[in-house]
Amino acid sequence: MPSNLPQDIVLAIKSVVGDAPLALHEPRFNGNEWTYLKECLDSTFVSSVGKFVDRFEDDLANFTGARRAVAVVNGTAALHVSLLLAGVKSGDEVLLPALTFIATANAVAYCQATPHFVDSEDRSLGMDAVALRDYLSGTTEMRSGQCINRGTGCVIRAMVPMHTFGHPVDIDALLAIAYDFHLHLIEDAAESLGSTVAGRHTGTFGLMGTLSFNGNKTITTGGGGAILTNDIELGKRAKHITTTAKLPHRWHFVHDEVGYNYRLPNLNAALGCAQLEQLPDFLRNKRRLFEQYQAAFAEVHGVHLVAEPAGCRSNYWLQTLLLDESHADQRDAVLAATNDAGLMTRPIWALMNRLPMYANAPKAPLPVAESLEQRVINIPSSSGLGSVAP
Amino acid sequence: MPSNLPQDIVLAIKSVVGDAPLALHEPRFNGNEWTYLKECLDSTFVSSVGKFVDRFEDDLANFTGARRAVAVVNGTAALHVSLLLAGVKSGDEVLLPALTFIATANAVAYCQATPHFVDSEDRSLGMDAVALRDYLSGTTEMRSGQCINRGTGCVIRAMVPMHTFGHPVDIDALLAIAYDFHLHLIEDAAESLGSTVAGRHTGTFGLMGTLSFNGNKTITTGGGGAILTNDIELGKRAKHITTTAKLPHRWHFVHDEVGYNYRLPNLNAALGCAQLEQLPDFLRNKRRLFEQYQAAFAEVHGVHLVAEPAGCRSNYWLQTLLLDESHADQRDAVLAATNDAGLMTRPIWALMNRLPMYANAPKAPLPVAESLEQRVINIPSSSGLGSVAP
Repeated sequence: MPSNLPQDIVLAIKSVVGDAPLALHEPRFNGNEWTYLKECLDSTFVSSVGKFVDRFEDDLANFTGARRAVAVVNGTAALHVSLLLAGVKSGDEVLLPALTFIATANAVAYCQATPHFVDSEDRSLGMDAVALRDYLSGTTEMRSGQCINRGTGCVIRAMVPMHTFGHPVDIDALLAIAYDFHLHLIEDAAESLGSTVAGRHTGTFGLMGTLSFNGNKTITTGGGGAILTNDIELGKRAKHITTTAKLPHRWHFVHDEVGYNYRLPNLNAALGCAQLEQLPDFLRNKRRLFEQYQAAFAEVHGVHLVAEPAGCRSNYWLQTLLLDESHADQRDAVLAATNDAGLMTRPIWALMNRLPMYANAPKAPLPVAESLEQRVINIPSSSGLGSVAP
Repeated sequence: MPSNLPQDIVLAIKSVVGDAPLALHEPRFNGNEWTYLKECLDSTFVSSVGKFVDRFEDDLANFTGARRAVAVVNGTAALHVSLLLAGVKSGDEVLLPALTFIATANAVAYCQATPHFVDSEDRSLGMDAVALRDYLSGTTEMRSGQCINRGTGCVIRAMVPMHTFGHPVDIDALLAIAYDFHLHLIEDAAESLGSTVAGRHTGTFGLMGTLSFNGNKTITTGGGGAILTNDIELGKRAKHITTTAKLPHRWHFVHDEVGYNYRLPNLNAALGCAQLEQLPDFLRNKRRLFEQYQAAFAEVHGVHLVAEPAGCRSNYWLQTLLLDESHADQRDAVLAATNDAGLMTRPIWALMNRLPMYANAPKAPLPVAESLEQRVINIPSSSGLGSVAP
């Protein structure tokens, strides 16, 4: 009998997570969520000022090792402000992986700048540093200390690598490129809270890093995000312009620049404090789930689970199947079979350069991204799944 | 003995609200807040999708009479998207009162457009329609159906009157100006939930209206806002671009334009649903507090309370003292005396044209706004204050 890959995948997933219908990623609220929310209501401090905002920022800084964390309303806002503070302005270009969530590209557009898409690598699913260096060497030149795209004449101001599904990119090689080509490096760590490179937390390598606490993330605040930085002055600037750029005064309302209302409400920060307390447990559970899936898929031919790159620790936010190239044509059949079986799965995002608003943006050759786009499938990944180890 | 206005004001306020220290405006959570928040946690739907978001939008539409309400992350986001949907673009000008909260002007800047500041009137503290018509008649001309500022050559695309502290502006006269000068009218109703003009809710007269549910507002969602419109197609467009412009699909991630992550989390919407149930009570309380303050200030010379304009119903969000012009020089002494006495008070905002980023923006003569800026003082306004009527 010929093997039936879609059905084999359904069976392998069910052997780990059981037969009940499952979402892709659900949050868990088994800690102090209720206590802190109640405290928030009782204090009446539910909005933009409150002790949970300060605590959440401190807790995030402590957990990640960043010198400063600034809580904001979501990951998109964190990216937008980080790019602004990196000096990205109208007409600039910003290097992004073509294979990313829409927020990374939109944040560039909010700055009136243009995303410039580059290729990814199989190993981390993130920016390919080797291909990027070759590409920039061949297509850019330095003028007055700025990296100029020879094709468009525009300044390439920054790069935003993304740690896809929690797997850290090759950040050291990308930092070296940023240094050599005079680019600011902002890390989109929206998906990688808890992921480290040589023991150092993702999002703390570049000028700034950004986190997301959307409902589908490893921890959630309902909606929320944060900016990480080791530059105390930049941290102050980030706090200022995400809180309407109001100058402190007992009663006067004076704002000294165009600011943003990107404050995370205290109510949402309260949830975040409770969630962050459980993060080490969530990370243990997600790693165990990965190991269980990996064992279950050992005998399924034509597909494998994406594992953390060597030297890195992944948070295993979303468990990821990668079909062999010879089986890429079965992706949609796998998606249909799994979803029909009540197991929510999804492909990776459409490449950004395929979307109408970014179709004319500059781009590098994207052979790996185009291949990954056809082969990646995320499977149920909530941290409560799988059998609990003794 | 000469009268001591600052001390008289402290005594008048205390005669209504008592001797304890008071904030300017605190929320009250005496309804189903806790029940709904728990339900939210128990369902795990705390984020961008959930039944409370849908219900909150329906409840807002029902309460205001708008055909569609779209919940968003805050009032600033609501303004930004409304301006975008009104077609405001780079280089355009948008008419705003100089006397407004910073969000109104910033939302224009986010569209790469320029705020164009106009004067206010004593009666409502909002845009002066008579002065505006005179001003536009003298300084603009119509070209190809567009209103052109003769001074700058730019298109004036829209106007954004604001219902200051909940007092409705003269919306009929402003609509007539919008019609005559081919301007879109967006109502900034951030402060006027519950305020009506001839029985119709503020925010439902223009092309779109915006609400805010920040912690200091009549009802709060922690942070949140909404777009109101009677145009069902515009409502759909607003929902689409505030939710990242993703096309609905069982698993594909395709976005068809530059969208925004302006979704109100379900957690915050849950709070909003509970708050909205209590809004009629809050409004009754705030009106009673106004009447009590009015009685207490009847014998204080040199100052009066701002009352709702004829034909309008104000939500009395912030109770507002207006010093007589002859006593304007005592404003800072009043602010100091009241705040020193533990009664939080504040002046109105600095005029937008005084802020560095808007100092060069076009503006009409602003004699009334400049006078009001020196004479307005908000006093403690929480809906729980004052003695309860039998």
